[in-house]
Amino acid sequence: MNIEQGRGVTTPAGFRAAGVAAGIKSSGARDLALVVNDGPRQEAAGVFTTNAVKAAPVLWSSQVLTERRLHAVVLNSGGANACTGPEGFQDTHATAEQVADTLGVGAIEVAVCSTGLIGERLPMDRVSMGVAAAAGELDSSQQAGFAAAEAVLTTDTRAKQACATHPDGWSIGGFAKGAGMLAPNLATMLSVLTTDAVLDEVQLDAALRYAVRLSYDRLDVDGGTSTNDTVLVLASGASGVRPDPGAFQEWLTAVCDDLVRQLRADSEGVTKEVDLHVRGAASEADAERIGRTVAEDNLVKTALFGSDPNWGRIAMATGRAGVPLDAQQLEITVNGVVLFAAGQPVGDRSAADLSGRFVEIIVDLHAGEAEATILTTDLSHHYVEENSAYSS
Amino acid sequence: MNIEQGRGVTTPAGFRAAGVAAGIKSSGARDLALVVNDGPRQEAAGVFTTNAVKAAPVLWSSQVLTERRLHAVVLNSGGANACTGPEGFQDTHATAEQVADTLGVGAIEVAVCSTGLIGERLPMDRVSMGVAAAAGELDSSQQAGFAAAEAVLTTDTRAKQACATHPDGWSIGGFAKGAGMLAPNLATMLSVLTTDAVLDEVQLDAALRYAVRLSYDRLDVDGGTSTNDTVLVLASGASGVRPDPGAFQEWLTAVCDDLVRQLRADSEGVTKEVDLHVRGAASEADAERIGRTVAEDNLVKTALFGSDPNWGRIAMATGRAGVPLDAQQLEITVNGVVLFAAGQPVGDRSAADLSGRFVEIIVDLHAGEAEATILTTDLSHHYVEENSAYSS
Repeated sequence: MNIEQGRGVTTPAGFRAAGVAAGIKSSGARDLALVVNDGPRQEAAGVFTTNAVKAAPVLWSSQVLTERRLHAVVLNSGGANACTGPEGFQDTHATAEQVADTLGVGAIEVAVCSTGLIGERLPMDRVSMGVAAAAGELDSSQQAGFAAAEAVLTTDTRAKQACATHPDGWSIGGFAKGAGMLAPNLATMLSVLTTDAVLDEVQLDAALRYAVRLSYDRLDVDGGTSTNDTVLVLASGASGVRPDPGAFQEWLTAVCDDLVRQLRADSEGVTKEVDLHVRGAASEADAERIGRTVAEDNLVKTALFGSDPNWGRIAMATGRAGVPLDAQQLEITVNGVVLFAAGQPVGDRSAADLSGRFVEIIVDLHAGEAEATILTTDLSHHYVEENSAYSS
Repeated sequence: MNIEQGRGVTTPAGFRAAGVAAGIKSSGARDLALVVNDGPRQEAAGVFTTNAVKAAPVLWSSQVLTERRLHAVVLNSGGANACTGPEGFQDTHATAEQVADTLGVGAIEVAVCSTGLIGERLPMDRVSMGVAAAAGELDSSQQAGFAAAEAVLTTDTRAKQACATHPDGWSIGGFAKGAGMLAPNLATMLSVLTTDAVLDEVQLDAALRYAVRLSYDRLDVDGGTSTNDTVLVLASGASGVRPDPGAFQEWLTAVCDDLVRQLRADSEGVTKEVDLHVRGAASEADAERIGRTVAEDNLVKTALFGSDPNWGRIAMATGRAGVPLDAQQLEITVNGVVLFAAGQPVGDRSAADLSGRFVEIIVDLHAGEAEATILTTDLSHHYVEENSAYSS
């Protein structure tokens, strides 16, 4: 399949979008987006942060999604609306009501996403004016999709869009911003995906969970699951084509994977993009746990920043993941060069050249058939610089 | 009780020590230490790394400690002897044999500790000459105890010793180096404690496990449990005094806590020393898990480096620890100022002044009576600088 970047949520038929500058951000950049599903169908599914501290829009949208139907999503940057109490929840509710009134639907069919600083109320007068302006600009053009993708950015340096069109006549599009908590004070990974395929709600939900597990859940830059993380998919059925559910799932996963790699490439302070493959595990959960531990290890991450193929740190991090393993079976390969096997160093580690931007690490436990790939980055001076700046 | 720094393992009666420069380190600094228990008793206990990848000296010493008796400990810096295969284990065994022969005891009564780069064989000719030299310098003086404390240092900038003398006539002394994997390529937290109290082996083991749980296990700078972490306690019984086991346990914990705070103060790149109290948890395990997650969170750590009382990041890290909690009950206090309570921001966060070196954070879940304190640091440019330098 061919994944195209630079086109997103308005690629599938049946969708309109808008992105406007509502003045929520002091910079004057776009900060409010609308994505509307004109149908004929309105199936939807959502996956939300596992953080026990959930922002108001997450509390609202996860409730809304129990109906598995969405007419629209409204998103803002410039404030996370997290840790803002009952008033913050009322703000989210009021925003959904306003969008619903404008579109002539029920508020229960409108999801809300927010991203920005935790602990500040949103300027509701500006949000409200932004909703009105965005509703007036709704359009099915690629420009409108781009404007929406741009309006959710925080410290991201560029909009991330991806789409794919199946030979059978249906397509998937989407945008995403941030990743984990890696965007400094401003938190949050948000993504909205659209499709004009005909899918029942159970299929759509299963496909989204499958795709997220193998894409968004596999990106780990700093372990920071935010209070606001949200991935939504909306299906219009406008193509009239009912795809094979397995094929749809694979295509959705591929679009999500492309968006995730765009997020990694634009993460704060990144100088290395690292694919970390854990193989030969007894279970996928074991493989993922080791991958996350290695990906979050500051000694591994600083060594990568220094272009140092320090397999000893990778072995240490692998061993501390809490997964039983036989160190004598452990094998570590960096950029194609085996550096550690059968409990002993192998060859000259300087043969593993880490001078480039892309690094591939393989940790093989030789304990089973399961595997998982975690996408991560290094830990650079720029990350510390950006994230130590006072947030107010 | 009065904890004294600057005196260590030779404070209790019945112990001799030595620290020599054996040439294992290229710097010419001291790099081999011996601590000998002349009795009359030789009870001992040990706690070792939970890392599944264990260095050869850990494999050896944990086996030796199943007998709960030690005549001596030999320690080296300049090489961790980890991931070195069967040959590395033979090196450890040979070192124990040499010490045992010199002292006229069995190798099974000699523990071995190593610290330094993972994946390199030790220069055994130098280790062997060092053991001979150290055996010739064994002495019960404070100078000898200091020399031993100095010989285990890696990137530590100073030796860490502590001791306490009970009014009943028994004492505890010890030294420590490193902490977690925070000393860059050179890994490992090692500590040797001595006492002249009369204790049976079960009491000694229980006291050490209690003390380690509340001291060494509560220091978390970067989550890096090394391949070599070892804490040993040796009891000579030379005071002839049998203490109340509860009192001994408390005193041992206090000495360990003092050493742990010295480790934190000398950790790589530290500019803030942070006491993180998690209170009101349903269990101590919950409190500790949240404390560790917050302590390891790079967004919290970089905010601390920037002297930013960013309670939003603390709330995020608390929520992602995997502990069920009610965000409406969560309360966050920084340096005595409540910043978040009942699900909402409280007051002006700039009232929490973080300009000093010491920071106290209280996270109260209001969900129970259990608590735990984790000691940690910030994440600074210097940490990245030190740990991204190529290790060879």
